[in-house]
Amino acid sequence: MGEHPVIGVVGAGALGLYYGAMLQRSGLEVRFLLRRDFEAVRRKGLWVHSSVHDSFHLAGVRAFADSRAMGPVDLVLVGLKTFANHLLPELVRPLLKPETAILTLQNGLGNEELLADAFGAERVLGGVAYLCSNRGEPGHVHHLGEGRIRLGEMTGAAGGRTRRLAELFDRAGIPCEAVDDLGRIRWEKLVWNIPFNGLCALTGRDVTELLAHSPSARLVEAMMQEVVAAANRQPLRQPIDGDAFIARMLAMTARMDHYRPSMMIDRSEGRPLELDAIYAVPLRRAERVGSPMPRVAMLYSLLDLGEAGGEGQ
Amino acid sequence: MGEHPVIGVVGAGALGLYYGAMLQRSGLEVRFLLRRDFEAVRRKGLWVHSSVHDSFHLAGVRAFADSRAMGPVDLVLVGLKTFANHLLPELVRPLLKPETAILTLQNGLGNEELLADAFGAERVLGGVAYLCSNRGEPGHVHHLGEGRIRLGEMTGAAGGRTRRLAELFDRAGIPCEAVDDLGRIRWEKLVWNIPFNGLCALTGRDVTELLAHSPSARLVEAMMQEVVAAANRQPLRQPIDGDAFIARMLAMTARMDHYRPSMMIDRSEGRPLELDAIYAVPLRRAERVGSPMPRVAMLYSLLDLGEAGGEGQ
Repeated sequence: MGEHPVIGVVGAGALGLYYGAMLQRSGLEVRFLLRRDFEAVRRKGLWVHSSVHDSFHLAGVRAFADSRAMGPVDLVLVGLKTFANHLLPELVRPLLKPETAILTLQNGLGNEELLADAFGAERVLGGVAYLCSNRGEPGHVHHLGEGRIRLGEMTGAAGGRTRRLAELFDRAGIPCEAVDDLGRIRWEKLVWNIPFNGLCALTGRDVTELLAHSPSARLVEAMMQEVVAAANRQPLRQPIDGDAFIARMLAMTARMDHYRPSMMIDRSEGRPLELDAIYAVPLRRAERVGSPMPRVAMLYSLLDLGEAGGEGQ
Repeated sequence: MGEHPVIGVVGAGALGLYYGAMLQRSGLEVRFLLRRDFEAVRRKGLWVHSSVHDSFHLAGVRAFADSRAMGPVDLVLVGLKTFANHLLPELVRPLLKPETAILTLQNGLGNEELLADAFGAERVLGGVAYLCSNRGEPGHVHHLGEGRIRLGEMTGAAGGRTRRLAELFDRAGIPCEAVDDLGRIRWEKLVWNIPFNGLCALTGRDVTELLAHSPSARLVEAMMQEVVAAANRQPLRQPIDGDAFIARMLAMTARMDHYRPSMMIDRSEGRPLELDAIYAVPLRRAERVGSPMPRVAMLYSLLDLGEAGGEGQ
């Protein structure tokens, strides 16, 4: 991957649109695979409304409705909702040439493994995005806060490729850190996602409302402790310092202003939830190392019940 | 309390209306303290629509809107929703003469104690109703299943008064058993109420839908196990045989046809929930004996969050 890789964004929800737009603004060629936003972006381009940095509009956006028309790229950026992962290999395959790297910024666990099974582990990187963003009208994405990425190789420590990628994001105004332990940062992200995504989706309350209700705030913390305990029995290079990390996550969340996690929006709009990647796979891996997460399992049951159409499911 | 006690029903929701109507039909004088149903019952009487036994209509019903107009009775039957318990002493006081007994058939824990504090423990009996009933239009109550009562003295074993009361219910077509251990039957009832009332209220799914979703069915059972464990560390005369009792409760529930527990109806109609009696007091008593109920505590937090109007609670 050279200095000016061509990037293909697969799964252009709020995350894919935001990072893709930032990378294009920095001067790179970015091709977007779009569904809902395809017509709007093709005709009028892409707006990023940010409450953190300057807002901007990209007039000329390479928008595609079919990945077979995109041509090969140097880097595939995957932002697809994980409930659509069964489509992922088919969507990504046309974008590959021999050296193409695939970076998944999707939520939860199991995404790198899926890509590695399809295309070989050596192509695959994973990243964790700390990004508050929501889609607006087609062609518009709202950047509400944060935005930094931590990324690593699926297998092994960070190398030249990982560092070049991190620089590329940094130059585009996306704070990015290359790490040696992708597993650890995935679990760290789950410490936040598992309680907040699910509890907000289940109860219809945003993160600020949740933390303002002290029994719920205690529940969030108890679930974070369960996730940290399970994480620290995974093969991580270094354990998560639970108390400090949880305190940091809670402080960060307290600075969010009525943020609605993606899963809460998905449920309120009747879309399926990312339950496999954020709950089922982590629960299985926790169970496997003898560190069950009873509150997390309960939340997963309740969320899954909500997915069951009427009775008899 | 003689052979033909005069009965005052305080809190005439589905439970109070049903039992009061059955007792009146058996020939006893029953006075009803009514709110929502007062006008309808005064004008047109009271209908019991039963899918278990004959339905019937009582044309002449002694309906009162103010307990101070009811005059003293021999037995006060309390069916008030526990979230209105702060009103209970004031509602009951005008009905008392020196020998009046007070039987609370309310849900959960803490109700006998409240009445005993106000009027002396020697007056107080408690009972647990296994009754599926819902209110219909004002003046109509629907009896969907079950109906039996188990009752006991607040302090001490069942005596003559308890047995006479049980006979009185039995003669009215309400299967009734006098027991020596009120605490135990209260906890036994909680084994059902704690999971089903709360989970149905939280998720909007009825008991049949809940049990049809196997992760939820497993969650129900795990919560029942928590309640049994806490119950068996209370001062009960005899422990609850957990596995057998839980199997019986689940089999009974499986026979219910899309039953909506009262708490589910309360929430769907925007009424407050009986969270203190069914969750907060049991959780405190479980905590006190070193048998915390983590899933129950989580459910309570989520239900309580739903009670908090908007943000900032």
